[in-house]
Amino acid sequence: MTEPKRQAEASEEALWRIFTVPEAPDSTLSIIEQNISQNLAGFLRESIVAVEKPLWQIERDFQAYQIPAQPKFVSDYAENMMQKLVAHSVHTAAPSFIGHMTSALPYFVLPLSKMMVGLNQNLVKIETSKAFTPLERQVLGMMHHLVYGETEGFYKKWLHSANHSLGAFCSGGTVANMTALWIARNRLLRPDGDFKGVAKEGLFRAMRHYGYQDLAILVSERGHYSLRKAADILGIGRDLLIPVKTDANNKVDSVEMRRVAADLAARSIRVVAIVGVAGTTETGNVDPLDELADLAAELNCHFHVDAAWGGATLLSDKYRYLLKGIERADSVTIDAHKQMYVPMGAGMVVFKHPSAAHAIEHHAEYILRKGSKDLGSQTLEGSRPGMAMLVHACLQVIGREGYEILINRSLEKARYFAGLIDLHADFELVTAPELCLLTYRYVPAAVQQAMHKAMADGDWERVQKFNELISGLTKFIQKRQREEGKSFVSRTRLKPATYQRQDTVVFRVVLANPLTTDAILHEVLAEQIELAAMDKEFLPKLLAMSRD
Amino acid sequence: MTEPKRQAEASEEALWRIFTVPEAPDSTLSIIEQNISQNLAGFLRESIVAVEKPLWQIERDFQAYQIPAQPKFVSDYAENMMQKLVAHSVHTAAPSFIGHMTSALPYFVLPLSKMMVGLNQNLVKIETSKAFTPLERQVLGMMHHLVYGETEGFYKKWLHSANHSLGAFCSGGTVANMTALWIARNRLLRPDGDFKGVAKEGLFRAMRHYGYQDLAILVSERGHYSLRKAADILGIGRDLLIPVKTDANNKVDSVEMRRVAADLAARSIRVVAIVGVAGTTETGNVDPLDELADLAAELNCHFHVDAAWGGATLLSDKYRYLLKGIERADSVTIDAHKQMYVPMGAGMVVFKHPSAAHAIEHHAEYILRKGSKDLGSQTLEGSRPGMAMLVHACLQVIGREGYEILINRSLEKARYFAGLIDLHADFELVTAPELCLLTYRYVPAAVQQAMHKAMADGDWERVQKFNELISGLTKFIQKRQREEGKSFVSRTRLKPATYQRQDTVVFRVVLANPLTTDAILHEVLAEQIELAAMDKEFLPKLLAMSRD
Repeated sequence: MTEPKRQAEASEEALWRIFTVPEAPDSTLSIIEQNISQNLAGFLRESIVAVEKPLWQIERDFQAYQIPAQPKFVSDYAENMMQKLVAHSVHTAAPSFIGHMTSALPYFVLPLSKMMVGLNQNLVKIETSKAFTPLERQVLGMMHHLVYGETEGFYKKWLHSANHSLGAFCSGGTVANMTALWIARNRLLRPDGDFKGVAKEGLFRAMRHYGYQDLAILVSERGHYSLRKAADILGIGRDLLIPVKTDANNKVDSVEMRRVAADLAARSIRVVAIVGVAGTTETGNVDPLDELADLAAELNCHFHVDAAWGGATLLSDKYRYLLKGIERADSVTIDAHKQMYVPMGAGMVVFKHPSAAHAIEHHAEYILRKGSKDLGSQTLEGSRPGMAMLVHACLQVIGREGYEILINRSLEKARYFAGLIDLHADFELVTAPELCLLTYRYVPAAVQQAMHKAMADGDWERVQKFNELISGLTKFIQKRQREEGKSFVSRTRLKPATYQRQDTVVFRVVLANPLTTDAILHEVLAEQIELAAMDKEFLPKLLAMSRD
Repeated sequence: MTEPKRQAEASEEALWRIFTVPEAPDSTLSIIEQNISQNLAGFLRESIVAVEKPLWQIERDFQAYQIPAQPKFVSDYAENMMQKLVAHSVHTAAPSFIGHMTSALPYFVLPLSKMMVGLNQNLVKIETSKAFTPLERQVLGMMHHLVYGETEGFYKKWLHSANHSLGAFCSGGTVANMTALWIARNRLLRPDGDFKGVAKEGLFRAMRHYGYQDLAILVSERGHYSLRKAADILGIGRDLLIPVKTDANNKVDSVEMRRVAADLAARSIRVVAIVGVAGTTETGNVDPLDELADLAAELNCHFHVDAAWGGATLLSDKYRYLLKGIERADSVTIDAHKQMYVPMGAGMVVFKHPSAAHAIEHHAEYILRKGSKDLGSQTLEGSRPGMAMLVHACLQVIGREGYEILINRSLEKARYFAGLIDLHADFELVTAPELCLLTYRYVPAAVQQAMHKAMADGDWERVQKFNELISGLTKFIQKRQREEGKSFVSRTRLKPATYQRQDTVVFRVVLANPLTTDAILHEVLAEQIELAAMDKEFLPKLLAMSRD
């Protein structure tokens, strides 16, 4: 059954064969597939990375810059990739990989994803997607209902309406956020009298027509960097994405935002949109969405909520109150590839108003003709795969009841871990989990006491020295832990109110993998204590300083 | 081995199980997967669509707008989807599906895609992709070499350089084109003295700083609609994407483009970029790239080539001369999911200069830190799947020699089909294939003679009447042929020089599937003749008119 070990060659016959439906289940390709599956399963049972190698060593295997002349056997290629690629990829689904928002996957998505890839539908138009089009519309409708909970009549009317969209399926949250803000900009600078609108005439003419000095977008200082990219590409400017300060809980201060808005108005700067964050990337907090909705109404501007990560919390009846006010947003970003357990590449933005996307509508001669149901006429992207099917599958197979359990367990696990950190004398919880994300750091008890004393004395210079050393130690531990390959937490830099907003590097943990046990959380802390002891630079200085 | 037919329920245990690596090859999931594979293979052997149903009937199965409360068994879901989704999807890989650029797939990509999905890497950063990062850089390097053919020293220096990019991997050609034009805009309106650049300060301030009245992008009237979207989102304006007329061969007229540019300059309108098309979507023609490169140099503007579809022709040593001049472009879009036989979702843009993407660079605290090799710091998108692996696989397994055969055969098949149409008395070849795309229509010999006479008489009103009726007939045949489900050609609307640019609806055929045989091409024509005879509206009028 194995392929003959002769030199592969590019003959017409060989080439036609690779495009032909494989016959028997014991064909060469099936054997290769079984090998891949077994190797993959073996690999996935192991640690975070199968073999730890520095990047520069891995790069050695990817130096060739010329497309190879001769074809290779699939079996040789697959074997080679198992060793050179898979063994050095990151096991994002490991129960001890708790550092990023990348999802663990339910295994049933794998055969379904093969089906999706094999069908190779192109969702830009009906002619290349047919039933996938109503399926995608249904998924967007379900997500719309999850956020806005409109009436049955609403969905009967709009779900499959040719010239309307309840949302847009995107490659990810960045494109989803861009789509929302693109709509916001185009609706603000709409056609008016002789002016044909920003979409047709461009931003310069639009600004002169409307007499604004600048445009701005208001968002928490914890807003995701994709919003700055959106401000750049839309011609608004990254500096005009105005970061508004947050309170001690990393929620945007809406009073401050109102003050900033008034200040902008006095300078003829028009606010295009307010963005509320439902689950900040770095601390997992939710902005006061109702207050932001009120402000957006006052300013008569678009209200977008970036719930790329936190939006899945709406699937929990118990915790959806944490996102209260989201139903007042004009648009909401939710990534199914984060807490909804769908593979990478499933971003979505839903629109409160079915006609919102008219502001970015476009047509062409060969497809997307007016009145057609081609999805491509109201999306930023063009040709796109049928990823919506995998969201559809998870919604059906897991169901509301299943998500209720998954989401609740994630939030409760985060609370459990926070408790563990809080109780441990040598750790400091920096931000408590509102959803299932928290940050903390390793600070020996003696150092904590010395720092508290310095704070009580008002000696903030000394506090800063402590913080600098602890940040160094935190980086050391995080890097070593990743290299050891047993578990992974990420790190970020915060400016906590407790420390008068001094730079503070922290471990960042996301607890969305259902297989992460309490025992694993204990082990993560135990390993960090061990690794800390290996540091010869920061820890000795910290301990010495705490004795001064 | 089948799942028990009880009600599925959301228990913690059941949920944890779906996230756990399946044990034996005879597990429930394996059985489901085998069923899917067999059904899929069966389906794929059939016609274009397994069962033809009008869209409104299919929509009935996708009406529910509430996420179901209860979980479903995977087997039930899969079975249901085989009937309601797969049976009504479009068989884009059928040898008789010759209407769109969506690729046929070599079967070896299916097990590899399952592996890619299962690993669920996130290419935005090293921490969630590790070896996939150098792999993606290698793929972009190979594509860069394919276009620009720089020296070994060049690739040694830049291929894995942290702060440089030889290209960007994108979800598709639209994002690739947007990325290129975003770079062009930001490089033109760069920081200058006190002005911090368009990226930071926005377009309005940039225009005032540089003193331009407007920005414009020049492209053939056959340019892809994604360029209009790009002009919109970038704040340039759709009306400022200036369509320049094409010659009789659907290639942009560079003399006319120079005239348009001079006219714009006189009105203080700055050309941001010239876009050359290498394989127009509607007729498959290639612009005179060398002439456009000359003009871009004169105007000191960015030169982008949209080779989303045609770029793969570079893989043929025999035909790559058709894209002569592409190596002078500042950026080039190539979609691997078109003629490179990679599944949907594999767009790329390559940059002549490794520092081009600095104009759109961005950083964040928790990832994409300065100096890191995180790919996300120079891309439009954020989180992205490891699709580059499938391009890598095709480049290795098919190899240059394999692509040489595939591309050459596609071009030669198109020439064969064009010959067939030309020889047939009742068909008219409207645009001959330069690459592997052609357009034609069914026009009975008697009608052709009557039209030629009208043209010779200079009776263009009569010609127009003919063209309107033939367009109606063409639409009728195309729609019926799609509905019959045996084969699929697409249609578009052209304005051929021959008919004094009167509207002309045509069949559009793309011949990139290696399994499309000459016999199939004969059958496509035979079926169209049969279908034409069923038309009771346009054909009788045409025949009557030709006898007048």
